[in-house]
Amino acid sequence: MSETYAFTAGEHGQWAIRAVTGAAGESLALAPALGIGPDAQVATGGVAWRLRGTLSNTRYATRAEMTDLRTRQPALMRAEATCAALIPIRKSAAWWDLAQDERRAIFEETSHHTAIGLDYLPAVARRLHHSRDLGEPFDFLTWFEFAPEHEADFDRLLARLRATREWDYVEREVDIRLIRNPDI
Amino acid sequence: MSETYAFTAGEHGQWAIRAVTGAAGESLALAPALGIGPDAQVATGGVAWRLRGTLSNTRYATRAEMTDLRTRQPALMRAEATCAALIPIRKSAAWWDLAQDERRAIFEETSHHTAIGLDYLPAVARRLHHSRDLGEPFDFLTWFEFAPEHEADFDRLLARLRATREWDYVEREVDIRLIRNPDI
Repeated sequence: MSETYAFTAGEHGQWAIRAVTGAAGESLALAPALGIGPDAQVATGGVAWRLRGTLSNTRYATRAEMTDLRTRQPALMRAEATCAALIPIRKSAAWWDLAQDERRAIFEETSHHTAIGLDYLPAVARRLHHSRDLGEPFDFLTWFEFAPEHEADFDRLLARLRATREWDYVEREVDIRLIRNPDI
Repeated sequence: MSETYAFTAGEHGQWAIRAVTGAAGESLALAPALGIGPDAQVATGGVAWRLRGTLSNTRYATRAEMTDLRTRQPALMRAEATCAALIPIRKSAAWWDLAQDERRAIFEETSHHTAIGLDYLPAVARRLHHSRDLGEPFDFLTWFEFAPEHEADFDRLLARLRATREWDYVEREVDIRLIRNPDI
């Protein structure tokens, strides 16, 4: 059994939404705030949209990559990390029809997804949520936290990933930028 | 987005339940019948238990193995395949903490999971449903269909899989045997 989180955009939440940008396909509505909590928790107030995702097992990382990531990745909710981004992504049917060895080859050997991410540690904290098996509109929800002075680095990280062959298979991507609400 | 099915044990259903056997961990209750349908469909009558799983992408198969499987595996609902088995399985936390290359090595290079399955094609039709990300009590629900004269072969298939190193990580497994109801 896995832990499922809901990201709820609406009137209230721990994070103020600063911008919502459609990077590929249909975007999402702008709303004042984003709340993050266990899926079972009921959202209060007007809900603009709600996305769900599960902390699941790794799908591509080798033991060496997992060890490297675990050694270097920071925790969420560091005091200085007052900026965040939520990036929901959906990949195409062509991606999901690939075999495991083909997806791994594009993900890492060609596109260096993990290797690129490692370049931005420990500045950028990250948590990946899997949504595809939940019948959600996106396949993944990735949550990032960083200090304001690292936002330009974060933009470079995104630009590098979007330039990879893996991103040819991304058919929908939304970039939601947030600032931690001081009053919650 | 993925297709999610519900397996509902109760008074009515397309399949008569002949036996429910706990192979590892807690078993499930015996009930007269099993219905299989889209998750959204509401179950009617008394429900003994209900398990949900999603048709997801392959997790370990290489392109060569996928091609081999697709060439040789039969469709579900063949007229002669009046016997079926539903095998819900849950693997341990130790399994899910392994990296992708470690799980693949145990699954195929050591335990020959796909290779063993191929030995029983085209007699045994199979459909795998993923449940772990749905927060279900099992990680996988595998559905098998075969003609009565192939039940002994199917038993050999299970015995060979249960003897593998992969099965050291199976902490719950139930074996549900069924016969197609002629009247539905």
